[in-house]
Amino acid sequence: MIKVVLIGSGNVAQHLIAAFQNAPNSGTEIELIQVYSRQTASVSHLINLEQITNNLDALAEADLYIIAISDDAIEAISSLLPFKNRLVVHTSGSVPLNVLNEDNRKGVFYPLQTFTKNKPVDFKIIPICLESENATDYQLLDKVAKSISEKVFAINSEQRKALHVAAVFVNNFTNHLYQIGQEICQENQVPFEILKPLIAETANKIMVLSPEEAQTGPAKRNDTATIEAHEAFLANENHHEIYKTLTQSIQENGKKL
Amino acid sequence: MIKVVLIGSGNVAQHLIAAFQNAPNSGTEIELIQVYSRQTASVSHLINLEQITNNLDALAEADLYIIAISDDAIEAISSLLPFKNRLVVHTSGSVPLNVLNEDNRKGVFYPLQTFTKNKPVDFKIIPICLESENATDYQLLDKVAKSISEKVFAINSEQRKALHVAAVFVNNFTNHLYQIGQEICQENQVPFEILKPLIAETANKIMVLSPEEAQTGPAKRNDTATIEAHEAFLANENHHEIYKTLTQSIQENGKKL
Ligand SMILES: NC(=O)c1ccc[n+]([C@@H]2O[C@H](COP(=O)([O-])OP(=O)(O)OC[C@H]3O[C@@H](n4cnc5c(N)ncnc54)[C@H](OP(=O)(O)O)[C@@H]3O)[C@@H](O)[C@H]2O)c1
Ligand SMILES: NC(=O)c1ccc[n+]([C@@H]2O[C@H](COP(=O)([O-])OP(=O)(O)OC[C@H]3O[C@@H](n4cnc5c(N)ncnc54)[C@H](OP(=O)(O)O)[C@@H]3O)[C@@H](O)[C@H]2O)c1
Repeated sequence: MIKVVLIGSGNVAQHLIAAFQNAPNSGTEIELIQVYSRQTASVSHLINLEQITNNLDALAEADLYIIAISDDAIEAISSLLPFKNRLVVHTSGSVPLNVLNEDNRKGVFYPLQTFTKNKPVDFKIIPICLESENATDYQLLDKVAKSISEKVFAINSEQRKALHVAAVFVNNFTNHLYQIGQEICQENQVPFEILKPLIAETANKIMVLSPEEAQTGPAKRNDTATIEAHEAFLANENHHEIYKTLTQSIQENGKKL
Repeated sequence: MIKVVLIGSGNVAQHLIAAFQNAPNSGTEIELIQVYSRQTASVSHLINLEQITNNLDALAEADLYIIAISDDAIEAISSLLPFKNRLVVHTSGSVPLNVLNEDNRKGVFYPLQTFTKNKPVDFKIIPICLESENATDYQLLDKVAKSISEKVFAINSEQRKALHVAAVFVNNFTNHLYQIGQEICQENQVPFEILKPLIAETANKIMVLSPEEAQTGPAKRNDTATIEAHEAFLANENHHEIYKTLTQSIQENGKKL
């Protein structure tokens, strides 16, 4: 049996607790034996009180310690762990493996998804990106990851950096475009609701078509008249600049093909 | 019974044919009696041959003519219609009502969705934006639209313009961000597949959270170290510029709140 300790009680930690508890082989092959949380109350709705500690010195002996706390606290926490030569991983897309303290064996267990507190996710389809310093540790991480997800990938620190940047584009920036869409609706007394089926279908399409195949619109068609009309319509300077930048980028892409 | 004639055989026309045929009150209250197509073969898999014509002079008498052809051909086709004082609408988000010929009563029947040939859609949840010159025509359009969709909105030409621009942001530009995500993956030997659950969840979130609530990431957190690392990582000049522009826009938004 592989014993896992989770350090953290935020968004990711809470979804991981639920995922481990729902794993089919939970308690037989893999077990989440303890959670560290500065405030025990924050996870007491998810796991028995006896399994929660707010004291690093009381951490149980385990095969794997998963640190799921804020990026800028990972280094400090990893150096406060009161043991050596155990496998310690973090869950961050943007923090290098080497930030973890030298005293223990290092690794990464990065679930590539955007988590929202209280919004359940199906962990089985969430890609987990793994990295470790040696093959034995990788095998253990692989087993643990596969107990909660069907999509497990070996991703080194450089690749993880690329993924994290790409995730900023498809998640943070996309959401910002949704916000601009909402602002344009509000300025023109149109309910943003009307755009939601389009937003859903835009994401759906990418599951079956490549982004190149799915690309449509005035920029793709080089429809100068419509582009000019849109630019004239956009009184908001910021919206106007983003419209121009992304239109140009789509047009440049068209030329490359 | 309201009789409808559809002019066009492309993407939108084909989805509309299917939607009318599947409407619960098809044949009792509303009936699609004819389809005009330059090439009859393009819709013969969807409707009986006798109901297809490639001759505008053979158009049947109907209560409503829906022109679902390329934006730049709407004006010409509407002026070739061999009758007067009937209700003629187009399905475009970007073409003004007034482009339709004066001989007939004008209107708009704009389904706000991105259609893909051979990818079925659930028309019931597609918003249909209606406009007409008078109340009686609006009532008829409303009846027809409600026979295929649960989401019908009165949208004037100015509002429709706003919606179309907003749609460019949440659909065309979002898809372009997906493409940049894919390019970053390819350049770093990471499968784009890994990002798909994130893309799906980003769109899902917006169904329950506002874009402001859903916004996360380094720009939102003003995490300068990560932003600088990402900018240094982005060797592609175009990706780099878009990263900067959208990051600044998110940061400006943060200041306004
Ligand atoms: N959110 C996502 O969608 C997502 C996705 C993939 C990976 N990640 C990564 O997962 C990790 C956790 O992110 P999250 O979203 O779960 O963050 P979060 O919801 O903001 O939670 C942060 C957690 O870190 C704890 N913490 C912060 N500073 C600490 C310190 N000095 N000592 C001990 N605990 C400390 C917090 O404890 P208190 O509650 O006591 O303050 C809290 O439990 C990060 O590395 C993040 O990059 C996040
Ligand atoms: N695609 C979307 O997602 C979407 C969404 C909402 C609204 N719309 C609007 O719906 C309308 C149709 O778009 P679509 O996507 O269905 O276009 P499409 O798939 O490109 O089909 C265009 C249709 O127009 C016909 N056509 C073009 N020029 C013509 C002419 N001079 N005379 C007669 N027929 C002509 C074509 O006939 P041939 O096949 O014979 O060439 C074809 O049937 C446009 O106004 C568009 O703005 C599109």
